[in-house]
Amino acid sequence: MNAEIIASGTELLLGEVADINTSFIASQLASLGIDLYYASVVGDNYERFSEVLRQAFERSDIVIITGGLGPTKGDITREVIAGLMGEKMELDPALQQHITDFFSRVHLEMTDNNLKQAMIIPCAGAIPNPLGTAPGWWVEKESKIIISLPGPPREMQPMWQKEILPRLEKKGSGIILSRTLKTWGLSEAKIDQLVGPYMSLANPTLALYAKADGIQLRITAKSNTREGAQELIRGRESELRMILKDSVWGGDQETLEEIVSRLILDKGLSVAIAESFTGGLLSYSFSGVHESSQFFKGGLIIADEDSRKSMGIVTGSNSGQADIRTASLMAALAREKFKADIGIGIDGRIQPQSDDASLGQAFLAIVLEEGEHNFAQTYPSRSYLLARRAVMNAFFSLRKVLLGL
Amino acid sequence: MNAEIIASGTELLLGEVADINTSFIASQLASLGIDLYYASVVGDNYERFSEVLRQAFERSDIVIITGGLGPTKGDITREVIAGLMGEKMELDPALQQHITDFFSRVHLEMTDNNLKQAMIIPCAGAIPNPLGTAPGWWVEKESKIIISLPGPPREMQPMWQKEILPRLEKKGSGIILSRTLKTWGLSEAKIDQLVGPYMSLANPTLALYAKADGIQLRITAKSNTREGAQELIRGRESELRMILKDSVWGGDQETLEEIVSRLILDKGLSVAIAESFTGGLLSYSFSGVHESSQFFKGGLIIADEDSRKSMGIVTGSNSGQADIRTASLMAALAREKFKADIGIGIDGRIQPQSDDASLGQAFLAIVLEEGEHNFAQTYPSRSYLLARRAVMNAFFSLRKVLLGL
Repeated sequence: MNAEIIASGTELLLGEVADINTSFIASQLASLGIDLYYASVVGDNYERFSEVLRQAFERSDIVIITGGLGPTKGDITREVIAGLMGEKMELDPALQQHITDFFSRVHLEMTDNNLKQAMIIPCAGAIPNPLGTAPGWWVEKESKIIISLPGPPREMQPMWQKEILPRLEKKGSGIILSRTLKTWGLSEAKIDQLVGPYMSLANPTLALYAKADGIQLRITAKSNTREGAQELIRGRESELRMILKDSVWGGDQETLEEIVSRLILDKGLSVAIAESFTGGLLSYSFSGVHESSQFFKGGLIIADEDSRKSMGIVTGSNSGQADIRTASLMAALAREKFKADIGIGIDGRIQPQSDDASLGQAFLAIVLEEGEHNFAQTYPSRSYLLARRAVMNAFFSLRKVLLGL
Repeated sequence: MNAEIIASGTELLLGEVADINTSFIASQLASLGIDLYYASVVGDNYERFSEVLRQAFERSDIVIITGGLGPTKGDITREVIAGLMGEKMELDPALQQHITDFFSRVHLEMTDNNLKQAMIIPCAGAIPNPLGTAPGWWVEKESKIIISLPGPPREMQPMWQKEILPRLEKKGSGIILSRTLKTWGLSEAKIDQLVGPYMSLANPTLALYAKADGIQLRITAKSNTREGAQELIRGRESELRMILKDSVWGGDQETLEEIVSRLILDKGLSVAIAESFTGGLLSYSFSGVHESSQFFKGGLIIADEDSRKSMGIVTGSNSGQADIRTASLMAALAREKFKADIGIGIDGRIQPQSDDASLGQAFLAIVLEEGEHNFAQTYPSRSYLLARRAVMNAFFSLRKVLLGL
């Protein structure tokens, strides 16, 4: 069973938009045990697109097309598939209804060209698109499959997970499973050194990735059964956890803010924040967590010297200087103002090092009923990443405090 | 003159590494006036790679290959090109010297397989690679060109800039320039309808893109001279601005928060924020702007009902319900608390529609010395995008207020 991917869109050939769908689908196919031999990009030109699709259909069992399902004249994926299949498109009343409903729900005017998205050929089944107006197509003919999906990843990926993955799972061979462990506080080189011996083993394999939320370790195992693969992963995971200890804060889809939020909720506590250095990002990160309204009471963003003074954040001899005492006063102020159990204060300063790189110093205070915890951290980064790293560090430190680590 | 790109490497087909070379080269070719009709990805398999290269060489004037120049058995780009050209590879003493020097410079042991990288065929010229051991190849035959470059972007891009770009500049025809207009508040279909007649014209061309910060219109013009292309773009831009009016807020690399911040700075005003619905994102967006400390005084994040009450945000009969009156009280509170000229309040509510989609209603108030402006907006989205859209809308509305539109 082999597959081929076609990413369509002149914007891709002009380099205006980077195609992130192909690597997403490629890794999905790999985990399904479906071989991918070719991937290509083609523009919104009927002849060339048709030629590429014809060749793919001849040499591959499954052809997956992304893009070209919009309402404009330049969107020709439907026309190209219909041409290859030798079928005529017709307006599908159910699809038309979905599109009409979508527009009335979002209070936007529906224009005539949107009806194009309700057209389909007899041998195709529509794949629902809950987040957009363009349905996908699933075409089976001569024991081959053509799958057409919209280009925007935020529409395509949920459609893949919900509709395509379950159908393809029945067609793959063998089971490949992965598990990601997420760490904070250790460098990639340090982790590479610690887990080095495992990096050259074959099943499970181990790979390291540097991400915004820390270094990730990906364990991948292959087996004939799901249970077999899970067993292999479990064994390797516990060995790695013994080595990396407290640096591991979670895995797979988990985010640090969700993990910390769950700890706060479980303990029945509430949180308030005062931040300067991170400009609102710590508050925003908490706000984004589901059920945050049950424990997050509010935040103060202190952006300039006047505001600092008028809120009483004055630290004696070095007033105005970001330091641990300021963070501590900020945490206490937030805790008192919002009547919260936990007060978090973040202050800091940035020292530009070069055009692009800066040295960030963040000062963090966590004030609870039973006492106060202080953290200082210095790290180099591109300027726009400094706030993000300080926020990650705040969550990581708060997790340690709550777990008593 | 048309080109084709082949990205090689099984790791790309497994989705382990995302191919960023293709979009880089694509945008470079666009600016050279060289048409790119096809791009493809192929694994480290001799037969399939050869087939893909043969087809590309037949239908395109220039074929650019990235990857497959490493020292391992899996790196077969040299073998595939030699096979197509029907020539035998020989060890090049100068290339061998470069590799030996490279290893002694980085104090690493050179292994025998590195000598593979010093092999070349008679019809190819070597392209120097200052940052690695693998030279590129430039092959000209039958008035066609094959260019082979290493896969790591940090090696490939400098080689492109220094060696490939100057050679291709002499072969391209004309100058191609682009200009992007950025809009907010109109749907893609609506804009498509409004500017439809321009979409089918050839020079300049017009394309639409849906982005997080609104629908973008990209004008692309081709001419023999830079001035000619600029003239074509200027003409089309002013026609489009007449049609789209106030919906256009900026262009090219501009961001809405930077534009609004510049307006605030130019008027010598200061800003404070109180937000609930957007959880800190509006404040964080202001904080991220260069020089924001000159006008942004601070923010209040009011995340729960208790905080709302304790800050006096109570709106009579419907207290607790997000509405325009609440936003107005919040704006006034922020303005007073931080002694700012402009107070911005955002409140809102989310109505879940399905698993993933929600309907957001945001209420925005902008309070200035001379009076108050209120805005209400309803829109559908994934939950995590609601705050982002509300923030975009706040910036867009503030821009209108400051410009008196």
